[in-house]
Amino acid sequence: MRAVDIIRKKRDGLSLTKQEIEFFIQGVASGEVPDYQISALSMAIYFQHMTEDEMFHLTMAVVEAGDKLDLSSIKGIPVDKHSTGGVGDKVSLILGPLVASAGVPVAKMSGRGLGHTGGTIDKLESIPGFQCELDKETFIEQINDIKVGIISQTGNLAPADKRMYAIRDVTATVENTALIAASVVSKKLAAGNRNIVFDVKVGKGAFMKTEPRALDLAETMVDLVAKAGGKSVAVISQMNQPLGREVGNANEVIEAIETLKNRGPVDLTNLCLALGSQMLIIGGKAETTEEARKILREKLEDGSALEKFKQMLDRQGGDISVIDDYTILKQPTNRLDIMAEKDGWVTALDAMKVGRASNLLGAGRKRKGDDIDHAAGIHLAKKEGDKVEIGDVLCTFMWTNEIADIEAATDRIREAYYVSMEQPQARPVVLRVVE
Amino acid sequence: MRAVDIIRKKRDGLSLTKQEIEFFIQGVASGEVPDYQISALSMAIYFQHMTEDEMFHLTMAVVEAGDKLDLSSIKGIPVDKHSTGGVGDKVSLILGPLVASAGVPVAKMSGRGLGHTGGTIDKLESIPGFQCELDKETFIEQINDIKVGIISQTGNLAPADKRMYAIRDVTATVENTALIAASVVSKKLAAGNRNIVFDVKVGKGAFMKTEPRALDLAETMVDLVAKAGGKSVAVISQMNQPLGREVGNANEVIEAIETLKNRGPVDLTNLCLALGSQMLIIGGKAETTEEARKILREKLEDGSALEKFKQMLDRQGGDISVIDDYTILKQPTNRLDIMAEKDGWVTALDAMKVGRASNLLGAGRKRKGDDIDHAAGIHLAKKEGDKVEIGDVLCTFMWTNEIADIEAATDRIREAYYVSMEQPQARPVVLRVVE
Repeated sequence: MRAVDIIRKKRDGLSLTKQEIEFFIQGVASGEVPDYQISALSMAIYFQHMTEDEMFHLTMAVVEAGDKLDLSSIKGIPVDKHSTGGVGDKVSLILGPLVASAGVPVAKMSGRGLGHTGGTIDKLESIPGFQCELDKETFIEQINDIKVGIISQTGNLAPADKRMYAIRDVTATVENTALIAASVVSKKLAAGNRNIVFDVKVGKGAFMKTEPRALDLAETMVDLVAKAGGKSVAVISQMNQPLGREVGNANEVIEAIETLKNRGPVDLTNLCLALGSQMLIIGGKAETTEEARKILREKLEDGSALEKFKQMLDRQGGDISVIDDYTILKQPTNRLDIMAEKDGWVTALDAMKVGRASNLLGAGRKRKGDDIDHAAGIHLAKKEGDKVEIGDVLCTFMWTNEIADIEAATDRIREAYYVSMEQPQARPVVLRVVE
Repeated sequence: MRAVDIIRKKRDGLSLTKQEIEFFIQGVASGEVPDYQISALSMAIYFQHMTEDEMFHLTMAVVEAGDKLDLSSIKGIPVDKHSTGGVGDKVSLILGPLVASAGVPVAKMSGRGLGHTGGTIDKLESIPGFQCELDKETFIEQINDIKVGIISQTGNLAPADKRMYAIRDVTATVENTALIAASVVSKKLAAGNRNIVFDVKVGKGAFMKTEPRALDLAETMVDLVAKAGGKSVAVISQMNQPLGREVGNANEVIEAIETLKNRGPVDLTNLCLALGSQMLIIGGKAETTEEARKILREKLEDGSALEKFKQMLDRQGGDISVIDDYTILKQPTNRLDIMAEKDGWVTALDAMKVGRASNLLGAGRKRKGDDIDHAAGIHLAKKEGDKVEIGDVLCTFMWTNEIADIEAATDRIREAYYVSMEQPQARPVVLRVVE
């Protein structure tokens, strides 16, 4: 078997066999298949797509060609959440404790940010002392004790996916449903999770720009998980403008804690309830979404969710005083208000551009391994639907690092805000649920 | 400008600008653009094609991003021939001297064989003493003195094409008209030739399997040369079965000399006359193909073409005694006759498979830089249209090297011969001329 023949077969629109897919993926994991064949096959798949069977074989081949985390000793039905990536998306910080407080174990493995979207681990690491690297035994013990934990990726999970993704990212072959679905689901399966609620983002700040494409990805992933013997639901949510009013790291942690205190922004709270209620149903703690939402609302109101977050911080070495004193987080040394230059309504706020601006301030990475400024970020005083007058503060930049590129960030944020005289219609955050 | 954005643009079916193409190609030549982006763009072009303008910009960018050979000091109108590659294709060995003997300078730069097709330089090197590496001044002096010379590729001509081709070859992105045309024409232009007769092969042993695809390539190349200020014609010729009766190296040299002695196989002679007459017209030595063919026939009959070949050998250090004594060529130490296993007619003889069999005997390379056995090859006693009886010799294997894989070569040659009771219709070698 030769990689070039497999590429040719896919290029010509034929379906690859299980054996062919396994051969290629083992070669990706071992390094025997060179980068240029990975990008060529990815581009061929971009044009010729994959059948359900091919996607399933790809997913399983990626899982098999690496380490696997065994979470079977966790008591109960652990349920995970996966977001396809958004700007201002601090949902994991809230959802883990919230769902755990309702009795469903959440053993979450998260990544660092790359590109225009932030990473949960980067956000958590802005809390002094918080430790994201736990060994497997400690992690499982924690989950069995307090039902929640978030760690950074450990072991050599899905190395073939890691290699393929890095190449796809620089060869314009990311935006393919089969490849995205296989990538997401293989990582989840390798990390021991097969009960998953997907948060499929759609809009300007998401990989999927249109609802039909998001729907396609959602259905594909749900089917793929079912084929792998798991259970999943997908929530399609809007990512035209950022989620909540904070984009960055430390400032997103504050907004997450505020949400756990039941005084968070409506869009963020609603999305957490939508995702959390599906997790409760899969985890066997509720029958209907109404029942589940009621339980979760109570956990926010009675402080149980916040208490769970505190327990998690405590177990993972984080300074729990942050809950009452946000000043223990790294503080920005510079602030700059960006003012409205005309009257009207904010009709759109481009999440992608806000994400880019935030990165330019130092909140994100250009390259893997870059340091980030945990105090850097943007507070969005005005969002879609807000009325503005000349001189009003649209948003505030925050940063500490001298390398922050304020000029470029300002250009991006000016492009991000669309202000016009026409009052826009409110757009809901949660668009639909795919089971 | 970023390579990934150029790939995305082409992937999405948009036309690339001159600047974008130059940026990418300069990066290919300098090494700044990595292999995986070259294969991704090639695959995107495979699916989305290129406009005439894009192809032209690609061709010129490849020429500019490397050394250029200046042949302007050659007297007269030099005309080159380019074959898209076939099995048993020893045309260059005959055509150079033949056309030169009629007064048209032929300053040919050739390559070594790779894959199932042989290379002119490999064939010439089977002649003791023949030197293919001349410096530019010596080469031009030779052309001005005797009007013909064949050298191996010199200098850093079209390095971007070399790099792209090596990657395309192992990523199933060779078979695209735009990329093939740009590759061929850029190499010719970089080598200083812009008056070209193309021999576009079609059939089982060619890159182009069907006549419409060959026609498309032929028209594309002719248009491309015109856009670059040159003059060209394309001859579409059949490459279902090998050309002539010899496939290998030394044995092909013998067949070429026999053809120059005007006793070569009809198919080979006819193709040489068809290509040569177009070269004479472009070179200003004839007005019509009838007139040109008449001149060339005379040069074969009166020994001028053979004499020209002798002059070329002499100037390039080759042992001219080969013309009368083929035994000075390396002789095979082993011969094996392959017999017919049933009665009937040879209805097809698959050139690709014959080429593969010949390579398995040692006549070709698996990898660049591999040694070849100049005595290895196949004599085809029977070709399409020949009647055979059980026990007749279909062909004879020749080799000297112990690593020759006789079993595999036999399998290939058995697959290559189609014998049936139905007498096939004769197929002409030259199918059409595209101006």
